[in-house]
Amino acid sequence: MSDIRSKFLEVYSLLKSELLNDPAFEFTDDSRQWVERMLDYNVPGGKLNRGLSVIDSYKLLKEGKELTNDEVFLACTLGWCIEWLQAYFLVLDDIMDNSVTRRGQPCWFRQPKVGMIAVNDGLILRNHIPRILKKHFREKPYYVDLLDLFNEVEFQTTSGQMIDLITTLVGEKDLSKYSLPLHHRIVQYKTAYYSFYLPVACALLMAGEVLENHTIVKDILVEMGTYFQVQDDYLDCFGDPEVIGKVGTDIEDFKCSWVVVKALERCNEEQKKLLYENYGKADQACVAKVKELYKLLDLQGVFVEYERESYEKLLKSIESHPSKAVQAVLKSFLAKIYKRQK
Amino acid sequence: MSDIRSKFLEVYSLLKSELLNDPAFEFTDDSRQWVERMLDYNVPGGKLNRGLSVIDSYKLLKEGKELTNDEVFLACTLGWCIEWLQAYFLVLDDIMDNSVTRRGQPCWFRQPKVGMIAVNDGLILRNHIPRILKKHFREKPYYVDLLDLFNEVEFQTTSGQMIDLITTLVGEKDLSKYSLPLHHRIVQYKTAYYSFYLPVACALLMAGEVLENHTIVKDILVEMGTYFQVQDDYLDCFGDPEVIGKVGTDIEDFKCSWVVVKALERCNEEQKKLLYENYGKADQACVAKVKELYKLLDLQGVFVEYERESYEKLLKSIESHPSKAVQAVLKSFLAKIYKRQK
Repeated sequence: MSDIRSKFLEVYSLLKSELLNDPAFEFTDDSRQWVERMLDYNVPGGKLNRGLSVIDSYKLLKEGKELTNDEVFLACTLGWCIEWLQAYFLVLDDIMDNSVTRRGQPCWFRQPKVGMIAVNDGLILRNHIPRILKKHFREKPYYVDLLDLFNEVEFQTTSGQMIDLITTLVGEKDLSKYSLPLHHRIVQYKTAYYSFYLPVACALLMAGEVLENHTIVKDILVEMGTYFQVQDDYLDCFGDPEVIGKVGTDIEDFKCSWVVVKALERCNEEQKKLLYENYGKADQACVAKVKELYKLLDLQGVFVEYERESYEKLLKSIESHPSKAVQAVLKSFLAKIYKRQK
Repeated sequence: MSDIRSKFLEVYSLLKSELLNDPAFEFTDDSRQWVERMLDYNVPGGKLNRGLSVIDSYKLLKEGKELTNDEVFLACTLGWCIEWLQAYFLVLDDIMDNSVTRRGQPCWFRQPKVGMIAVNDGLILRNHIPRILKKHFREKPYYVDLLDLFNEVEFQTTSGQMIDLITTLVGEKDLSKYSLPLHHRIVQYKTAYYSFYLPVACALLMAGEVLENHTIVKDILVEMGTYFQVQDDYLDCFGDPEVIGKVGTDIEDFKCSWVVVKALERCNEEQKKLLYENYGKADQACVAKVKELYKLLDLQGVFVEYERESYEKLLKSIESHPSKAVQAVLKSFLAKIYKRQK
């Protein structure tokens, strides 16, 4: 497994050097150095789960058959395209959210000399994806499906981000808009498609499958992505900052979090008033009052129940899928996230 | 001609309504309204030259044969894709440059309630292009070439913008970096590909041509785009603000303009010192000193000579092209920009 990881990182270096010598653009020395620094800062520093899962999934689809070097390379390449997509989203999200740190270091736009150039750097990251795909997949029969897939998933992610932004920032802090269907919609579009569906869809295309035949797989992965985000929302409030690596601020940021939606569902009029008065304020006394209410409403218990139900429902859906190989792919995803603490 | 314009605007309304009902995303009422307002604010308000020239070019390639309704519609659609691309660049450029107005109204990010959501709106604009292409061109034999074309041109534009940003903003105001080759490179990548080459390339693809066979056309259009930008730089300094519709600020903004590059080429040591001391400062006394030097160096005369030479060179290249239809396309572009005052 650490073998795959080092292979994966090797492929990063190759893709980077190809991009730094892309004949479609005459680099100056300054601009080549800029892009290299920007890539190293933003692309490979995460957990790489999304990228690595393309290779895992492809292996499972091949049912234990040894992969050729070429297959490993191509699966790694698609994995990196997803990591590039993630880097593009994060660089721009941090600007929009005015964030301070990311993956334990200052956000890219906060680097001296970068500032608003980070907007264009985000676009460069995004533009690298079709460059990589063209170089390595142009002759594959599924090339056009790959382009369509990345385009559709990016569209969905950006659209989900839009609902999140206009309800969180522009919604004049109107808690009455927050509901489970809204939460589900934001999460589905903003996170689930690119984090859960996209890696598997890439593996399916490589394996010669037609994506239209796999809408059930898509639905299951999107549900899994939703479950993953509910965990994220829960951990933001109840997780151990030492373990998750950051201090949650969803309450302060007036986020449409699963936790606040569940609280709204369960509270009485008086408690609702308390929530309306204290949610979305930076004041730590307000945050404490919200958290106290969450405990009173037993949201920890509600979450445990949600987690159990989701797991069972997902497992049932997976086991009713006709292909054992596809079942294995979906189960490997589920196992990675069930009862996670970070 | 105003007939084509009204047809073109009709197609905008149709494309917009398709996007507002795109089945790949479940809109909320709020988000649908948001996108509609954002599109109307940013997409159709320009001169529409780039978009309209797809239709003009396609007509010329068809050598006077009457276009079918379907052909007119498809050419308009590709024209709008270029206008969408332009809107995406402008929304994000205005954020990076901290601009105040665009097309005679406040920049989109300066609208109340918009702010940094404009970054995501820029991405939405960009994501609409493959949605439009997929809906109307998925079954065309040139669909994949169209995707590759838009991807390559966007990559080049973003890369050109990067050199512009890192030399202008981060270059610690180092005038010694400014040269004709650098200016040429910025202009070529940042403007010429998407404004001049892209419309014609779209028309060529629709006409069933293979772009690899038209590198000469590409080179001529890129040269024309360069010539267009030199005019722009010249007008920024010497044009009539009443006519061009804005007050130029290239001197204040330390821009790598053709004018300053020519000045650096022609000045003596003493004049160079004056330029180094006064270029890139907001102080109007400094701007006046720079403009005085420009006049002393007869940059107006240098420009007239450049314009004449460029025109002759372009015309000669065009006339040596084997196809009369292609010649007509290229000449129509040249006629539109030669000796323009705005």
